[in-house]
Amino acid sequence: MKLYGDLKSGNCYKVALLLKQMRAAHEFVKVDIMNGGSRTDDFLSKNPNGKIPLLEISPGQYLPESNAILWYLADGSAFLPEDKLQRAQVLQWLFFEQYSHEPYIATARYIKVYLGNPADRQADLQQKQKRGYEALDVMEKHLAANKFFVGSRYSIADIGLYAYTHVAHEGGFDLAPYPYINAWLARVKAQPEYLTMTA
Amino acid sequence: MKLYGDLKSGNCYKVALLLKQMRAAHEFVKVDIMNGGSRTDDFLSKNPNGKIPLLEISPGQYLPESNAILWYLADGSAFLPEDKLQRAQVLQWLFFEQYSHEPYIATARYIKVYLGNPADRQADLQQKQKRGYEALDVMEKHLAANKFFVGSRYSIADIGLYAYTHVAHEGGFDLAPYPYINAWLARVKAQPEYLTMTA
Repeated sequence: MKLYGDLKSGNCYKVALLLKQMRAAHEFVKVDIMNGGSRTDDFLSKNPNGKIPLLEISPGQYLPESNAILWYLADGSAFLPEDKLQRAQVLQWLFFEQYSHEPYIATARYIKVYLGNPADRQADLQQKQKRGYEALDVMEKHLAANKFFVGSRYSIADIGLYAYTHVAHEGGFDLAPYPYINAWLARVKAQPEYLTMTA
Repeated sequence: MKLYGDLKSGNCYKVALLLKQMRAAHEFVKVDIMNGGSRTDDFLSKNPNGKIPLLEISPGQYLPESNAILWYLADGSAFLPEDKLQRAQVLQWLFFEQYSHEPYIATARYIKVYLGNPADRQADLQQKQKRGYEALDVMEKHLAANKFFVGSRYSIADIGLYAYTHVAHEGGFDLAPYPYINAWLARVKAQPEYLTMTA
């Protein structure tokens, strides 16, 4: 398998973390998205939506969308429950991540770290932070009663949400008022075969 | 089962369409989101993220996120393939829908139809339309070579993408330059037990 991506992207980091935790052999192919690497004709022939990460499952067989990749890799392993309702709950949190969390928490980080926090993006940044805190509130409430997101067990729901939450401070988020999120971040970090984002 | 929602929302319509096509008995509970119906204490106790649709699977057991609900309902039926790669491809398109399609195509419709197309949202509307057309381009390219989104067969990937695409014109999108999308919309509409959005 080949993983096309950039570890600085939380969406790519998710997949790299799971691959390491599953001890799955793979090649990593760096795509330089800040310099148009995901918009070349060659890359668009692999993923017409022009986004990373992209998993090449076998030569010429590509799967995009970070959370679909997590599902594909984890299915049949301890990282994805077998129970029908729990599997739907894993998807519930992964869709929450892509719709209510990533567009705000990842984008705030993008504006601050990658765009250099420009003056003309400050109103946008504030709006992203407001919605990002709403997502953190939903997570805090859930984690107050649950050690992990689904079935009291570490799964790809945790990996999906961990990726951008653990670097939320880079987007200007203050996690100090979220004790349950902090305890959960520590539980994820303590999992076997953990990978840092800068590895 | 109870479905909490509003059929005018494409995210709710998806679930209602699948329930009808599966001939699954259920009660529909209208939530008036334009008047705060999804932000009441009662509703937030059912879904802390304050969004519809919400499926009550059994008394007190709630599942949010439209595409997680589609997966839960369709799993084990003809609406979700059994093959591992095809299942991941269904998720690929459902995540594409929530990340690259719905935030632009549904939101443009929301600005025009529900907010009354106000002057101070025109720059925002144009940006949504630009990104919405990019999503339509990705769909058109895929449908030029495929009758349905996954495995040459109607599945919840089609239901997920059909919901807001078939009312995209209400958001100001011109679908005339998309012959393959139009042919696919007609194929979906011709499925047994089809449900209109205004039913």
